[in-house]
Amino acid sequence: MRQKKFLLQEKDIPTQWYNIQADMPNKPLPPLHPATHKPMVAEDLAHIFSMECARQELDTQHAWIDIPEEVRDKYAYYRSTPLVRAYGLEEALDTPAHIYFKNESTNPLGSHKINSALPQCYYCKQEGDTNVTTETGAGQWGAALSYAAKLYGLEAAVYQVKISMQQKPYRSAIMRTFGATVEGSPSMSTRAGKDIITREPNHPGSLGTAISEAIELATTTPNCKYTLGSVLNHVALHQTVIGLEAEKQMEMAGEYPDEVIACFGGGSNFGGLAFPFMRHNILDGKKTTFVAAEPSSCPKLTRGKFEYDFGDEAGYTPLLPMYTLGHDFKPANIHAGGLRYHGAGMIISQLIRDGYMHGVDIPQLETFESGMLFARTEGIIPAPESCHAIAAAIRSARQAKEAGEEKVILFCLSGHGLIDMTAYENYINGDLRNYTISDDDIEKSLRNVPQVEI
Amino acid sequence: MRQKKFLLQEKDIPTQWYNIQADMPNKPLPPLHPATHKPMVAEDLAHIFSMECARQELDTQHAWIDIPEEVRDKYAYYRSTPLVRAYGLEEALDTPAHIYFKNESTNPLGSHKINSALPQCYYCKQEGDTNVTTETGAGQWGAALSYAAKLYGLEAAVYQVKISMQQKPYRSAIMRTFGATVEGSPSMSTRAGKDIITREPNHPGSLGTAISEAIELATTTPNCKYTLGSVLNHVALHQTVIGLEAEKQMEMAGEYPDEVIACFGGGSNFGGLAFPFMRHNILDGKKTTFVAAEPSSCPKLTRGKFEYDFGDEAGYTPLLPMYTLGHDFKPANIHAGGLRYHGAGMIISQLIRDGYMHGVDIPQLETFESGMLFARTEGIIPAPESCHAIAAAIRSARQAKEAGEEKVILFCLSGHGLIDMTAYENYINGDLRNYTISDDDIEKSLRNVPQVEI
Repeated sequence: MRQKKFLLQEKDIPTQWYNIQADMPNKPLPPLHPATHKPMVAEDLAHIFSMECARQELDTQHAWIDIPEEVRDKYAYYRSTPLVRAYGLEEALDTPAHIYFKNESTNPLGSHKINSALPQCYYCKQEGDTNVTTETGAGQWGAALSYAAKLYGLEAAVYQVKISMQQKPYRSAIMRTFGATVEGSPSMSTRAGKDIITREPNHPGSLGTAISEAIELATTTPNCKYTLGSVLNHVALHQTVIGLEAEKQMEMAGEYPDEVIACFGGGSNFGGLAFPFMRHNILDGKKTTFVAAEPSSCPKLTRGKFEYDFGDEAGYTPLLPMYTLGHDFKPANIHAGGLRYHGAGMIISQLIRDGYMHGVDIPQLETFESGMLFARTEGIIPAPESCHAIAAAIRSARQAKEAGEEKVILFCLSGHGLIDMTAYENYINGDLRNYTISDDDIEKSLRNVPQVEI
Repeated sequence: MRQKKFLLQEKDIPTQWYNIQADMPNKPLPPLHPATHKPMVAEDLAHIFSMECARQELDTQHAWIDIPEEVRDKYAYYRSTPLVRAYGLEEALDTPAHIYFKNESTNPLGSHKINSALPQCYYCKQEGDTNVTTETGAGQWGAALSYAAKLYGLEAAVYQVKISMQQKPYRSAIMRTFGATVEGSPSMSTRAGKDIITREPNHPGSLGTAISEAIELATTTPNCKYTLGSVLNHVALHQTVIGLEAEKQMEMAGEYPDEVIACFGGGSNFGGLAFPFMRHNILDGKKTTFVAAEPSSCPKLTRGKFEYDFGDEAGYTPLLPMYTLGHDFKPANIHAGGLRYHGAGMIISQLIRDGYMHGVDIPQLETFESGMLFARTEGIIPAPESCHAIAAAIRSARQAKEAGEEKVILFCLSGHGLIDMTAYENYINGDLRNYTISDDDIEKSLRNVPQVEI
């Protein structure tokens, strides 16, 4: 019988995360204070985030950072996740390529988000905090945070984009099941929310409004910290458990990837899988290709510009050096809610500049077509976000077939789509479409990027 | 670090299912032809089911039945499922009991149902069928069957109870994602459905109507077989992979269960986990306790009667010897749709008569209270059905605490509840309630059981 799944023993779960910043030939540019434009240090970030996360965010010295034993103990409930050889998909494509996927859909709550929710909550608890808050769109991150907060005995308040909350009631029910308070944003519970509602009573909410509310709650509540599920360096750091495990598991399979693929929103599942392998490109001369799959309707990697820009729509965050479409770019209402973000993380942006990786953009219909084929051959209905990685892997496997090349492809299945079935139903009924963006539209939203010399 | 998960290598996945019928001191009584009341033989069943399943159904000779290599190969995509030591739950209960659960929620589609859907479809394919059909209520079985049919290249038609289809649109979307045709039952696609709709245009459907339609389709369509997700002997047989794996995994943990618990609808996840351990009670003098957890609102094991009765509401199936509440018993509309069935399987019913196992009944509110505690301590939101097993395990762990007893409890987490979040939302909002049934009601529905001497 052909071996399909490769699993590590609990004792072989990584004991350290990999911090690629230490090995990068060119370090990411520093975040800047929005008013003074001066580089920020960890202490500047620590009134919002836990001190340890703030330190990790700016650490360009240590390639390996210990995973606290208390976090590893929680990881062990669900890790290692399986590395799976996708024989079913290979056969359907009749490709000589070997396709592997790292299955993060087996995590509690069904996505990779828990890998960073656990340490973020752990550090808050250690530093004496009692409360955490965050924003969430579709709710994958909010669900993971709610569970992690409960595990470490913290109270969680989640601001969920109001329209998403109404469209995806299951995810807010999940958060409440874990004891979190869930507020539709804009809400009447913050100054920022009240201001928005006063101006526009039926405002549907956006990640921008939700971030503003969460940050306000964190900065005005004693012992309450803000947490974020992607974009930032420390989040990708925590996610490197994915790639570090995958490295050992590929070894068990007797192979090494020629191409590593993940979907791309803020960069956390991408960095998590890619960085440990990219390390060998940087240090050992390996030639693996790294592909970040983004939606054609939100093409910051393939059509954005490298600029200092805000992380949120309202402009409350530090200025971050990033490939961006402009912080007030309005992405189309595609079902892959987790990829509707205007900018890339700081590390990723630098790695693109330095040629270590590149983006590809995938139209919505191709993502669902790919996700359907994957479901029917591998038995897992993928999250709409993960469908982007699958689509890129399928493109690559088809090229391998044309070239007659026995290429090894590894992609991240960042989550399952069982709570996104409305999207599949719409696809099957022919009610989905592709979205195109004109160069003019991108140019227009880039005009609002603050003018900072790089 | 304490080891929490116990996993088998793919090569250690069972190669045979365990057929407890061969070892039972008293064999189950045979099913009877509904008209003649004569015992049925495999050939009688084979015009509805595949020949191999019909044979397995009545096999009282062979304790071990080979799992076809092609089925084992598909099992290997997701098996072994983890055996997990529930440290979080133990700590919350402050119990000296050791609680383990077999996590079938990691299966494709999120429940144990796939374990029997795969062999049932495989045998149909082998025997030259091109189509399969079935009925489904909440949709766990229909989803698993749709996937299995796709894997083996069969067309699947699923009759889903109309009201369930409307209440749980995600599950029918899952079936369609796997390419199945899903009809709300009663439908206009069968004689039986048309008759019902003619009489009662707004009939909400029931498992009874859906079974009638599926059987009609199977018997009137060339090369089409009917499949069933529980109740029958061959379904429980296929599910013994659960218990056979758990036996090896408990050995890895260095323990043997004092008590084995599973929720009970028709008996497939219960039999799957329990039979391999019960074998040691029958053959080796072990003293393990076996507990089937049923809803208080559908108490066939604790308050039903052992009689020959129909498996469906309309009375189309063979007469089965079973603990029953009467085939036209109308269970309350609890959220655990998979447990709303009037009768127990033939094997189970005999085992209860012979004192090898017993039922406990759990009120709805206790099941959700237990499920919430489990979610918050173990990170998995359990299916409403599985919450019954959790509740029974919690009762037992509390008794162990009172008695100061270091008991080993093993239960089956038959599935996750991510598609049942409406139920949790209702529970959190205080909108759920318990249902009680009077002895009179039970007596009344038992009056319609056909009079057959046992």
